[in-house]
Amino acid sequence: MSSAAVKYARDNQPRFLEELKDFLRIPSISTEEEHRDDVRKAAKFVADELHRIGFQNVEIIETKGHPLVYGDWLHAEGKPTALCYAHYDVQPAEPLDEWVSPPFEPTERNQNIYARGAVDDKGQLWMQMKAFESLFQANHGKLPINVKVICEGEEEVGGEAIEEYVHTQPEKLKSDFALVSDTELFAPDLPTLCVGLRGLVYTEIEAQGAATDLHSGIYGGAAPNPLFALIEIISKLKNAQGKILIPGFYDDVKKPSAAELKAWKSLPFDEEEYRKKEVGSNVLTGEDKYSVLYRTWARPTLEVHGMPGGYVAPGAKTVIPAKASAKVSMRLVPDQNPDDILKKYTDFVNSLTPKGISVKIKVHSKGPAIVVGTKNKFVKASTDAMHEVFGKDTVYIRSGGSIPIVAQFANDLKIPSVMMGFGLPDDNLHAPNEKFHIPNFYRGTESIVRFFEILGT
Amino acid sequence: MSSAAVKYARDNQPRFLEELKDFLRIPSISTEEEHRDDVRKAAKFVADELHRIGFQNVEIIETKGHPLVYGDWLHAEGKPTALCYAHYDVQPAEPLDEWVSPPFEPTERNQNIYARGAVDDKGQLWMQMKAFESLFQANHGKLPINVKVICEGEEEVGGEAIEEYVHTQPEKLKSDFALVSDTELFAPDLPTLCVGLRGLVYTEIEAQGAATDLHSGIYGGAAPNPLFALIEIISKLKNAQGKILIPGFYDDVKKPSAAELKAWKSLPFDEEEYRKKEVGSNVLTGEDKYSVLYRTWARPTLEVHGMPGGYVAPGAKTVIPAKASAKVSMRLVPDQNPDDILKKYTDFVNSLTPKGISVKIKVHSKGPAIVVGTKNKFVKASTDAMHEVFGKDTVYIRSGGSIPIVAQFANDLKIPSVMMGFGLPDDNLHAPNEKFHIPNFYRGTESIVRFFEILGT
Repeated sequence: MSSAAVKYARDNQPRFLEELKDFLRIPSISTEEEHRDDVRKAAKFVADELHRIGFQNVEIIETKGHPLVYGDWLHAEGKPTALCYAHYDVQPAEPLDEWVSPPFEPTERNQNIYARGAVDDKGQLWMQMKAFESLFQANHGKLPINVKVICEGEEEVGGEAIEEYVHTQPEKLKSDFALVSDTELFAPDLPTLCVGLRGLVYTEIEAQGAATDLHSGIYGGAAPNPLFALIEIISKLKNAQGKILIPGFYDDVKKPSAAELKAWKSLPFDEEEYRKKEVGSNVLTGEDKYSVLYRTWARPTLEVHGMPGGYVAPGAKTVIPAKASAKVSMRLVPDQNPDDILKKYTDFVNSLTPKGISVKIKVHSKGPAIVVGTKNKFVKASTDAMHEVFGKDTVYIRSGGSIPIVAQFANDLKIPSVMMGFGLPDDNLHAPNEKFHIPNFYRGTESIVRFFEILGT
Repeated sequence: MSSAAVKYARDNQPRFLEELKDFLRIPSISTEEEHRDDVRKAAKFVADELHRIGFQNVEIIETKGHPLVYGDWLHAEGKPTALCYAHYDVQPAEPLDEWVSPPFEPTERNQNIYARGAVDDKGQLWMQMKAFESLFQANHGKLPINVKVICEGEEEVGGEAIEEYVHTQPEKLKSDFALVSDTELFAPDLPTLCVGLRGLVYTEIEAQGAATDLHSGIYGGAAPNPLFALIEIISKLKNAQGKILIPGFYDDVKKPSAAELKAWKSLPFDEEEYRKKEVGSNVLTGEDKYSVLYRTWARPTLEVHGMPGGYVAPGAKTVIPAKASAKVSMRLVPDQNPDDILKKYTDFVNSLTPKGISVKIKVHSKGPAIVVGTKNKFVKASTDAMHEVFGKDTVYIRSGGSIPIVAQFANDLKIPSVMMGFGLPDDNLHAPNEKFHIPNFYRGTESIVRFFEILGT
């Protein structure tokens, strides 16, 4: 079934895409201090657009970190209220030399748009905006349901500001459900709703040995080496089979339901294809008694992301560094509690720390896993909307990633989240050559239009 | 006993120091491509000075890497010939924010001159130059012995060019002994000759997992992580007690003689003072059944210097890197063979490499340990010269560092090296705030003057 708003969205596709490109040109890297102004520029870009298309009470909300953007339209009396979330910040673009086209010069190739943030999450944020615009335009300045929009600029760096805001402003954000656009389709033409996310505890272990960097010839054999200490510690956190060795780590892990496991088995997933095309490694690793989907969606993991310290430029320097650190994160599953896991992890790291070394654990981010029920009317409406747009039944999946805000919407606002996302598994999130498949940008826009129209009838 | 040359050296101390400052201002960092021209500038600085003070046949010798500088004066008929070696390249200055004064703006504080290269090795190179100048000036343009000078600009980066040059030009460099100025005094006022050096094998293990960087949420649990693989590998190379676990690693280790061990025990060494003031850690580490001097001078070690790869900037990035590497070096002692050790290390690393990961081992440098006898006339003359200048008996020590050229002088030129160096244990070699104690710069100059005068009588 089509509608005037869907027609409007189709007629304006080329403009929508050009606007998205302008948005993608802003290098809003939230983790890098030198891009602070760019993050703010992206916030203003969103606020201006909200205002232009018809939202009211648009504001850029100052925080301790990067700003939030809010806007609402609340005149659909008797209709439900949606809280629409997306983020306008992006990951760093390194390693730059692996990008085919520059990360902040959006480039079209093979029906994809390549840029940092194309799919995570500026493209999906813009998909929401263009759905709202289409609905306003086709309905004489009205929306079929009430809508509150809240966008953040710190998703890639822990999301502290929105965490505090949601926690302290539950009345202002009060809604019936959240629409979160930051996930992906299971396969290119398969309408998908994400109903589960892993949690995350992201830490940095900071180790100190000697008071200053020392020459490894002169002092090697007597001076503590914090890099080697980190290696000793981290090597004992996980074994070669992918099992995490922190005492009590698996105590609260809850298995997915039998029905869910059965449904996953029927998904179109080819492990060999995944290994070759997505991962590109000669084998897959991890706990091999679980399927790949099981272990990436519903098993906890531990990874090391980088080890700053010592000499990392090309060539050789014979230094025993005074300090080094390791970025170590854990993905959590239901019902692991992030605070409990952090405590167990911290205790274990401390117990493993060799003599001569002192460690401090810094927490970059922390959030629980979440599973959303599939029976409520919002999931139902979004399922129907995608069925119309794609002409196929929707599949329910989980994601191994973490969207802490979804857990917080559940806890603080007591609302379910509809995670309707239109990325693809090979979109290179957080990696060079991130892309968004352009037809999905359009289908996502139409799906949100129809979702709200169905809810408004 | 003083001499006209010693008087000249004393009268010109302030100028010698100002010239050294000019030399130190050149950031001749051999390991960094962007400083290639600075390294050449430092070579020219040395060549110009050799020419100015009276050397003949001065040349800048082109190589595949950084140039060598040569000059000679060979008119002391019937007298011995010295081959004088020092290097004009320096280590990188990072971490820059820990320098009290900038690394390439030489600054005097507390009778020290602070700068990268102050003691390693530009200050000691300049000490040789000023000894030569004083001898030329006091002896009507003549030197008391024959002198060949060879300086290199790749010592901090493996020394390939001089290795090849010494190997292919033994006739040109033919001498009776080498004077190598790149070591230190055991204590501030204690005349010291270094008679042993550890060898070095410096490698980089390059590991590759997936084809591209991956999001740790989406792929964590299935994708190989090369950083974690390196951690697994390196954790098994050495145990917590400092014992290296590579099979056969200790096979050829030769103990120091009983006399040497006894002499080391009588050196003025306070382990607690060393721990507090030099290392600045709460304990010393390593093989505690050996004394600190034994294990830093005559026991092999293995260290990790840096692990490039993944995300190392401030903040968090949830990436599973496609590639990572680790800079790992081993210090060797007599009679370990570097090629044999490299083979054992490579085989062991390969055997430890987990599935899903491929590793390549790059060798940055490689040289054996060396021990010089103390009975020859050159060591005798240098001992006497230092006795005069310091008014004390000379002690014989080893150094844990590596000067591969000393081994090569022994092997290719069949000559002993007199390692007469005037650094101090707290000079912060390879670390922030490197310094050279100014009185030692002057005493070093005078010691070389007297050394050559004694040999020339």
